[in-house]
Amino acid sequence: MKLYDGGRAPNPRRVRIFVAEKGVTVPTEQVDLGKLEQRSATYKAINPMQRVPALVLDDGTVIAESIAICRYFEALQPDPPLFGRGALDSALIEMWNRRAELHLLFPVAMVFQHLHPAMKIMVDPQVADWGEANKPRVFEFLRFLDGELKDRPYVAGSAFTVADITALVAVDFMRVSKMVVPEDLVHVRRWHEAASSRPSARA
Amino acid sequence: MKLYDGGRAPNPRRVRIFVAEKGVTVPTEQVDLGKLEQRSATYKAINPMQRVPALVLDDGTVIAESIAICRYFEALQPDPPLFGRGALDSALIEMWNRRAELHLLFPVAMVFQHLHPAMKIMVDPQVADWGEANKPRVFEFLRFLDGELKDRPYVAGSAFTVADITALVAVDFMRVSKMVVPEDLVHVRRWHEAASSRPSARA
Repeated sequence: MKLYDGGRAPNPRRVRIFVAEKGVTVPTEQVDLGKLEQRSATYKAINPMQRVPALVLDDGTVIAESIAICRYFEALQPDPPLFGRGALDSALIEMWNRRAELHLLFPVAMVFQHLHPAMKIMVDPQVADWGEANKPRVFEFLRFLDGELKDRPYVAGSAFTVADITALVAVDFMRVSKMVVPEDLVHVRRWHEAASSRPSARA
Repeated sequence: MKLYDGGRAPNPRRVRIFVAEKGVTVPTEQVDLGKLEQRSATYKAINPMQRVPALVLDDGTVIAESIAICRYFEALQPDPPLFGRGALDSALIEMWNRRAELHLLFPVAMVFQHLHPAMKIMVDPQVADWGEANKPRVFEFLRFLDGELKDRPYVAGSAFTVADITALVAVDFMRVSKMVVPEDLVHVRRWHEAASSRPSARA
């Protein structure tokens, strides 16, 4: 298999951290997003959605979408479980991963894509008002998450899961838009420090 | 258990169709979105994200996020499998469900939320340019999907899955924004007719 990776973009990093947590090694090829290589005919033949990451299996089957790739590795290498085990545990981890996507990673990405000058070549049209509208959503969710993390170590409960990976990547991606976790969100900051100190966070 | 439902909104319908396909009956309570009941203190205690649907279990545990609720029912009632079976099949269904969300349901929702006058009370701020920017994305994805459906009956392959539910709900939700599947997308139209003729589609 081969993983088409995309450097510092948040979604490729989600998969790299996931794979590192699993202790799996995957041959990787970089797609240079700065050069818009994801829009080349070669890459469009792999993923018509023109997004990274994408995983190509030995028989040529392509799995795109970060979480689909993560679920594939979860099935190949069940330990440690990052999507939970059992009906309820798995459902709650899915809920928290989606909350971290919809209310944190997605708004952070919108701020970046619609306000950062470097994204002008990629995002057409950039809608500055939409970028601005997403800033308060980021901080609202972080404040809500802070209340949740008062009573538990990780986003979805007592264990590190894919929801922590999504939230970590989102928080780290705030930096490119000069957004910072407010000082008073002490539980988010404690969680972020713990998640960042895992070897996988360097992925 | 009790399902907090939301009438004609697309996400509650996803769960209703899913549950109907499973042949499961769930006690339901309507949350009146027109009256902003999802923002009431009572409902915020159930789902702080102020969104429907939400499933409350007998011990009070809340599962929010449509796909998390669907996965819970998939675990309770595995037949018919709507998220696939086995590593590859499940990963491909996850990929197609996410494509249908990110490139179809989500853009359709953005067009509605940011352009429809009735949404002014719910969406603050409405960003008309962002609504407009999402229209071409809807039709681009439908055209791509048409090419895919030339060679297979359903969105993710030979079986009806959660990806069909997401895509069906998205296409039906185009109507409120006066968007129509173009006549020449014959494969999408054939698929839509087949999906719409299932008893679950009335949910």
